[in-house]
Amino acid sequence: MKGARLYQYDSAFHGPEFLKLENVPEPKIQDADDVIIRIGGAGLCRTDLHIIEGVWRNKVSVQLPYVPGHENAGWVEDMGPEVRRFRKGDAVIVHPLVTDGSCSACRRGNDMHCENGMFPGITRDGGFTQYLQVKERNLVRLPENVAPKEIAPHADAGLTAYHAASKAAKVLQPGDSAVIIGFGGLGHIAYQVLRAKCAARIIVVDHSDLALSLAEELGAKHLVRGRDNGVREVLRLTRDKGAEAVLDFVGEGGSIEQGLAMTRNAGSYYIIGYGGTIQIPAIDMIFSEKSIIGNLVGTYADLMELMTLAGEGQVRLATVFYPLDEINRAIFDLHHGRIKGRAVLIP
Amino acid sequence: MKGARLYQYDSAFHGPEFLKLENVPEPKIQDADDVIIRIGGAGLCRTDLHIIEGVWRNKVSVQLPYVPGHENAGWVEDMGPEVRRFRKGDAVIVHPLVTDGSCSACRRGNDMHCENGMFPGITRDGGFTQYLQVKERNLVRLPENVAPKEIAPHADAGLTAYHAASKAAKVLQPGDSAVIIGFGGLGHIAYQVLRAKCAARIIVVDHSDLALSLAEELGAKHLVRGRDNGVREVLRLTRDKGAEAVLDFVGEGGSIEQGLAMTRNAGSYYIIGYGGTIQIPAIDMIFSEKSIIGNLVGTYADLMELMTLAGEGQVRLATVFYPLDEINRAIFDLHHGRIKGRAVLIP
Amino acid sequence: MKGARLYQYDSAFHGPEFLKLENVPEPKIQDADDVIIRIGGAGLCRTDLHIIEGVWRNKVSVQLPYVPGHENAGWVEDMGPEVRRFRKGDAVIVHPLVTDGSCSACRRGNDMHCENGMFPGITRDGGFTQYLQVKERNLVRLPENVAPKEIAPHADAGLTAYHAASKAAKVLQPGDSAVIIGFGGLGHIAYQVLRAKCAARIIVVDHSDLALSLAEELGAKHLVRGRDNGVREVLRLTRDKGAEAVLDFVGEGGSIEQGLAMTRNAGSYYIIGYGGTIQIPAIDMIFSEKSIIGNLVGTYADLMELMTLAGEGQVRLATVFYPLDEINRAIFDLHHGRIKGRAVLIP
Amino acid sequence: MKGARLYQYDSAFHGPEFLKLENVPEPKIQDADDVIIRIGGAGLCRTDLHIIEGVWRNKVSVQLPYVPGHENAGWVEDMGPEVRRFRKGDAVIVHPLVTDGSCSACRRGNDMHCENGMFPGITRDGGFTQYLQVKERNLVRLPENVAPKEIAPHADAGLTAYHAASKAAKVLQPGDSAVIIGFGGLGHIAYQVLRAKCAARIIVVDHSDLALSLAEELGAKHLVRGRDNGVREVLRLTRDKGAEAVLDFVGEGGSIEQGLAMTRNAGSYYIIGYGGTIQIPAIDMIFSEKSIIGNLVGTYADLMELMTLAGEGQVRLATVFYPLDEINRAIFDLHHGRIKGRAVLIP
Repeated sequence: MKGARLYQYDSAFHGPEFLKLENVPEPKIQDADDVIIRIGGAGLCRTDLHIIEGVWRNKVSVQLPYVPGHENAGWVEDMGPEVRRFRKGDAVIVHPLVTDGSCSACRRGNDMHCENGMFPGITRDGGFTQYLQVKERNLVRLPENVAPKEIAPHADAGLTAYHAASKAAKVLQPGDSAVIIGFGGLGHIAYQVLRAKCAARIIVVDHSDLALSLAEELGAKHLVRGRDNGVREVLRLTRDKGAEAVLDFVGEGGSIEQGLAMTRNAGSYYIIGYGGTIQIPAIDMIFSEKSIIGNLVGTYADLMELMTLAGEGQVRLATVFYPLDEINRAIFDLHHGRIKGRAVLIP
Repeated sequence: MKGARLYQYDSAFHGPEFLKLENVPEPKIQDADDVIIRIGGAGLCRTDLHIIEGVWRNKVSVQLPYVPGHENAGWVEDMGPEVRRFRKGDAVIVHPLVTDGSCSACRRGNDMHCENGMFPGITRDGGFTQYLQVKERNLVRLPENVAPKEIAPHADAGLTAYHAASKAAKVLQPGDSAVIIGFGGLGHIAYQVLRAKCAARIIVVDHSDLALSLAEELGAKHLVRGRDNGVREVLRLTRDKGAEAVLDFVGEGGSIEQGLAMTRNAGSYYIIGYGGTIQIPAIDMIFSEKSIIGNLVGTYADLMELMTLAGEGQVRLATVFYPLDEINRAIFDLHHGRIKGRAVLIP
Repeated sequence: MKGARLYQYDSAFHGPEFLKLENVPEPKIQDADDVIIRIGGAGLCRTDLHIIEGVWRNKVSVQLPYVPGHENAGWVEDMGPEVRRFRKGDAVIVHPLVTDGSCSACRRGNDMHCENGMFPGITRDGGFTQYLQVKERNLVRLPENVAPKEIAPHADAGLTAYHAASKAAKVLQPGDSAVIIGFGGLGHIAYQVLRAKCAARIIVVDHSDLALSLAEELGAKHLVRGRDNGVREVLRLTRDKGAEAVLDFVGEGGSIEQGLAMTRNAGSYYIIGYGGTIQIPAIDMIFSEKSIIGNLVGTYADLMELMTLAGEGQVRLATVFYPLDEINRAIFDLHHGRIKGRAVLIP
Repeated sequence: MKGARLYQYDSAFHGPEFLKLENVPEPKIQDADDVIIRIGGAGLCRTDLHIIEGVWRNKVSVQLPYVPGHENAGWVEDMGPEVRRFRKGDAVIVHPLVTDGSCSACRRGNDMHCENGMFPGITRDGGFTQYLQVKERNLVRLPENVAPKEIAPHADAGLTAYHAASKAAKVLQPGDSAVIIGFGGLGHIAYQVLRAKCAARIIVVDHSDLALSLAEELGAKHLVRGRDNGVREVLRLTRDKGAEAVLDFVGEGGSIEQGLAMTRNAGSYYIIGYGGTIQIPAIDMIFSEKSIIGNLVGTYADLMELMTLAGEGQVRLATVFYPLDEINRAIFDLHHGRIKGRAVLIP
C-alpha cells in the first residue's frame, strides 16, 4: 500500500521532500483485540513539523524510516476474534494512544497516562498511508452525520483542545474571562468547546488576520490583534485583574510571559503550545496564587464527548484537504502559516 | 506601649539591631467593627527576614518606620459598637489579612484574595508590640485548651501550610505519595495536616539533622537527608514514577528543579517557599501534564479548621519563646537556622 | 406608603381578597449598613400562594398582618453611614436572605445557609409595597441594560433555578441528558442556565401547552407533553438508561415518582418544587446509586453570576406586569395557571 | 469440588439447612482473559441472608440451584493465554463485579456501573466453594503481609464501606461531624476509612454492646447506645445543627428517619444498609438542602486503595473463621447477631 515515510530529520526545514512516498507493507491482525482501519483522512499537525525537525528525537524512541500521522479516522476493515463492539465498515475515529486498559491510570479513566501506551505516528507507524493497525480500545464510533475525513484532526488536535478547554470550563463561571492565545488548529476548537461548556466571556488573541477572520466567522466577540495588545486589552476588559483562565496554544515567542501576565490572581494558565520555556520567580507564583497547568492529549471519554459535540454541530472543524500524494506540499503550507484551520490528507 | 520597629532595610543582614525597640503609640477603636487585641504571642517568620532584607520592598507599599509581626494571637481588649461575636478577654488568633467582606472573592469564601485587603505587619503596623488593631472579621476563637502564645505562628505559617496541604490532600488517595521538601516551621505543620486529612504516604526531604529529628519525633517514616538523594529516593519509593504531590517549602537553591523532578506525570508541584525561579520547557509540562500550583496564605475558614486540629492535638506546633525585648536575638537565630520549629515573641 | 398585607391564611384559596391594600409605615435606616430600596418591581411566586394557603405557617415564624414579597429589585433610596459600595439611585436586585456575614456558612460563601438569616417577605415585611429595608450585603448591582422590573423574579425564582441548574451543569458532560420537569417560572430559567453552562441534551417535560410553547420559543428541541410520556420518552432517548440529571420543578402530583424513574443509575434527581413526598425503598437507592439532591435558593455569588447572564441576554425572563393595586388579580391568575413566565408587581 | 448451593428461598429463615453442601463441577478457562482462583476465604455477608430470604429474587435473575459467595480472595490457579499481569500462585482479592472494560462507565473508571456487569455469587456461581472463575480485570494483588482469608470480606463489605466513606471524606473538613449508624461488618471498616482519609469527628451509633465494644477497641471516642439517643446526642454534640455526613449501614427499623434527623442542613445522608423505605416531604429537602446519596459497591480503583490501607494496617478487619463445611452454622450465627465483625468461610 502507499505510505509517506520519514527517512531523516530536517532541522532547518529545507525540504522540499520531507516525507518519502513509497510502497509500505500492509499491517496484519495479530492479537485478538486488533483492528485494521482503512484510513478516510489523516490530520497534519504542527507536531508533525516538530517531528520532521527532530524536536521530539530525544523525547520518544522510534526508528527511521517510519510513517508519521497520528490523527486518524476511517472505517473498520478487519478485526481480531475478540473484537465485539465493531463490525467491518463502521466509521470510527482513532484515539491516538494505544493503551493497556489494566494499569492504574487506565482503570481510573485517565488512559492518556497509561503506563504502557504507544502512540502510532509518533512511536511507531501511523496514518499517512492506507491502512492502520490499532486496538478495539482505540475506536470511537462516529455520529451518523459525520464523515471520517471531516473530523480526523479531532483525534489529536481536537482532543487536546477539548481536554484543556474542559479543564478550564470546569472552573469558569459567568462573569469570568477566558483567553485563547493562538486561534489556529487547536485554538479554534477550544473556542467552540468553551462556548459549549461554560458561559465565560472568551477573548481571542492572535497576530494573524487569517486566524482572526476565522474567529469572527465562529462568532467570537472579543478579538485582539497581537499579543502585546493582548495583555493590555485583557487587563482593560477585566478591571485590571486579568482573566481567570488563559489557554496558550502558542507556547513560544513571548506568549508564555504574556499569557502569565494576562492571568488573574488565583487564576490558571494552561500551557498547550510548546517551543518556549516557562520562567517565573517563585515569589510571583505565591503572591498571585496562580497555577500553571500542563496539558496532554485527552482521554477516550473526552473523545466520545467531543464526537457528540461534532455530531451536534456544536464544534465545527475548519479543514483543508490534500491528497496523500501531495503531503509535502501540505507540510510546506502548514510551515508557512498558509492553512486556515487544519490540513487533512486523503489516501 | 513597647514596640519593635523597622527603620531601614538591611540587605546584607549585618545587624545586630534589625528592629529598634521603642515606645510606640497605642492603637484606638475607629470603626464600628474594630477590635484591639492584647498580644499574647507574635510569631517570627522567614518572611520577616525577607522584609528586613528588603526583598518585599517592591512588592508592597509600606512606609518606614513601622512595626512588623503578622502572626498574632492574644485576647480581645477593646471593640467597636457593632462587634457582636466577641467579648473582652476572649482568646483569639488573628487571621493575617484585613478583608472587606464584600468583594467578589470575599463573598465566595476566598477572602485571602480580597480586592481591598491589608496585611498588618507587612503593609501596616503589626504585632511585635503589645496591642494590635484589626477587625472583628479577623478573629477566630481559640479552643479552650489552647493558649495564644502556643499557636500564634499558625496565623500565617500554619495557615499557609494548612492551605497548601489541604489542596494536596484533596487529590491524594491511599497508595499515592506526597513529598515535603523542607521540614521547618511550615513543613512540620504541613506534615501533620496531610497525616490528618489524607492517607497518602509522606516522604520528608531535608538536609538538616535538626529538621529530620523533628520529623522523626512527629512520626514520619520516610526521611531523606539531602535533596539530591530526595529525587533518587522518591523515584525509588514510587517505582520510578515520582510522587503525586510535592510540596516545596524551600523554593530556592535547587529545590524547585528537584521538586519538579520528583513529581509524577499528572501530578502537582506546590510552590510555597520562595527565593528561586521556576524554569521549565513548555514541552516538559505538556509531556508530563504536571501542574505547578502557587500558594498564598489560607482563608478564614482554613484558619477555623486549623484551630480545630490544634485543639484536638492533631497539629502540634514546635515553638521556642523569646521575650519581645530579645527580638533581635530571635531574628539572628532564625537567620542562622538555630530554631527547631517556630520562634514566638512574648511582649 | 402603599402596601399589600396578609391578614389571614386562606387554605381553600377562596379569595377574592388574598392581600389587603392599605397604608403601611415607611421603613427607616437603623444600622450603619442598612439600605432602603425603592421597589421597581416585585415578583409574585408560587411560594406566595403557599404562604397565603398557610402551608408555611409551621415552617417559619411571622406575625400577621405583614407584607409578603421576596423577589425584589429597585433603586437605592437611602443608606446607613457605613454603606460604601452603593449610592442613591443605583439600580439593584435584592438577594432574598439577610445574612450576618460572620457565621461559618457565610465565611465559606454558602450564605444562603447563614445561621442567622432573615427572609423579608417570608419572615418579615417584604416587597409588595414601595420601600424595603435590607442590608448592603443584599445588593447586587444591575448591568446597565437591565431594568429592575424586568429581572425582579430572579431574586428568588431565578436564583433558585440558577442554583439547582448550576449544580447539575457541574457534572453534565456532552452526551449526557438533563430533564426539566415543569417549564414554568423556574423551569424556563433553569433551561437557559443549563444551555449556557453545559452541553448536555435538554429534555422538557410539561403537560401545559402554554409552557411547551414557551419552551419552543426559547429553542428547546426535545419537548414532551405529560409526565407519563416523559418517563417513556426519556428512556427512549437514552437507550433505556435514563437521564444523568432530572430537575423537578413540580414536586407533587406524581412528578417525584416519575422524576426518579427517569433518572439514570449513578445520576441525580434534583428536587426544587414541593408539595409531594419522596418515597423510595432503600434497596432501590443502593442498586441504582442515585442521589436525591435538595435545593434551596442560591448564594450571593450565584446572584452575581445570574445577573451577568441576564445582562448578556443569555437568560431572558418571561414576565407579565401588574400594577401593585391589582395584586389580588395577579394572585388569582397565577393560581389558575394563566401566567406565561412570571408575574411582577409594579408599585 | 465441594460447594454450598442454594436450592430454595427461605423467607421465614427457618433453616437449619440454608445451603446444601455437595459436589459441584470445577470451572474451566474459556476466554483468553479468564482466570481460575483457588479460594482462600469467602466472606459471608448480610446480603447472603437477604438472598436466602428471597429479597433479591426480583432484583436479579439467577437460576437455582447456584453457589452464593461474592467476597472472595485466594490465589491464581490457572489463566487464559492473554492474562499478562498475574502468575500462578499470586495472592489476590477478587473485585466482585465482572466488567466489560469497554462501556462508557468502564472507560471513565466507574466500572461498578458497567453496562454488562455480572456478579458472581449473586447472578451466577460464586465463592462458597474451592475454585472460582473470573477475569483478569477482577484481580487486585495483595500486599505481601496480607493473607487472602484475612481480607476476603473487603471484596464487597469493605469495598462498599470504603466507597461510601470516601465520598463522605471528600467533603468533610476538620470541625465537621460524621455519624456511623450500625457498627457491624461494614460500619467498622467505614470508621477506619474515615479516620484515615479525613479529620472529621466520628460519632458511632449502635444499640448492640458487642458492636460498641468493637468501636471502643478501634479507638472511637463518641459512642452512643441506641439510635433515639443518637439523634439527641448528635444534636447535642453539634450545637443543635446535626452532622455534615451521616452514613446509615442499617437502613431499616427507624434508622432512616433517625439518620435524616441527624443530618445537618446542607449535609448528606448516605444510605448503604437496606430493608426500609426513605420517606420525606419534598419541602423538608428544600428547606434543609440535604442530599440523600445512594451507595453501590466500589470501583476497582477503590479496591486497590483499600488494599493499600489494609497492607499498611490502617484498616483492620474483625473476622471470625468457619470451615466451609459449617456454613449453615455461620449463616445462623450471622442472622442472630452473634458475630463480631465478619464471618469468613475457609474451604
